[in-house]
Amino acid sequence: MHRNLLSTIVIDVPADAHDRTLAFWSAALGATARATRMPNYHILEEASPPHRIVVQNVGSGPAGVHLDVHTDDLDAEVERLVACGATLVDRSWADHPGSWIVMRDPAGMEFCVVAALTEVRKADHGEFERRAKPVG
Amino acid sequence: MHRNLLSTIVIDVPADAHDRTLAFWSAALGATARATRMPNYHILEEASPPHRIVVQNVGSGPAGVHLDVHTDDLDAEVERLVACGATLVDRSWADHPGSWIVMRDPAGMEFCVVAALTEVRKADHGEFERRAKPVG
Repeated sequence: MHRNLLSTIVIDVPADAHDRTLAFWSAALGATARATRMPNYHILEEASPPHRIVVQNVGSGPAGVHLDVHTDDLDAEVERLVACGATLVDRSWADHPGSWIVMRDPAGMEFCVVAALTEVRKADHGEFERRAKPVG
Repeated sequence: MHRNLLSTIVIDVPADAHDRTLAFWSAALGATARATRMPNYHILEEASPPHRIVVQNVGSGPAGVHLDVHTDDLDAEVERLVACGATLVDRSWADHPGSWIVMRDPAGMEFCVVAALTEVRKADHGEFERRAKPVG
């Protein structure tokens, strides 16, 4: 039995609008933008706890929002979601320290499945333990 | 002084993929899809509390995710967000019982500003009172 948690909402912003859009969402949600060790990602602290709201610089990609589903068993969760109707898009980040896999829902919308219990997410392990639910 | 709360995440689904995508996200998030009085909207109960996750049938519109920022003063919040860098897209729903206004962030992404304390959202007033923060 493994668990998942829709914990993170990612606001995707093209590079040419990044700085002003990061400033906008910080002001809009009464949040403080905190840089992370990955330069393309800022966390909007206190934007909407207990969820994490992240602004990602997507370079030449489109503006939008995507969902990160965290799990304590990446392979089992991806297999389960495929059985539910999702398709695998990109697993090239699975061996990155952040460890995630890009998938697509039945309507074609991309989302990420993220390994929750990695070293780089140590600060969030308690939140996962508190809120994740058994799914498979 | 008014307040806001990023309380609701809306998964937008084109009509031709709606039923299977609603079933997918229900299974993916261990949630139960509940119909609402508006036939295009289903709430995914217990998907990721305390946030509300909604699946919207957007007809011929594109798949995606959008954010709903709830507020206790719709006009003041829209004015504040325009000052922060957003633009007004559509206020034709402001006088609907659900009362919301569509806006666009500086990167061009649409989101909604929603009147929290209307009669149709009575069940959510307590959540707004507990979690909303002063912003303007």
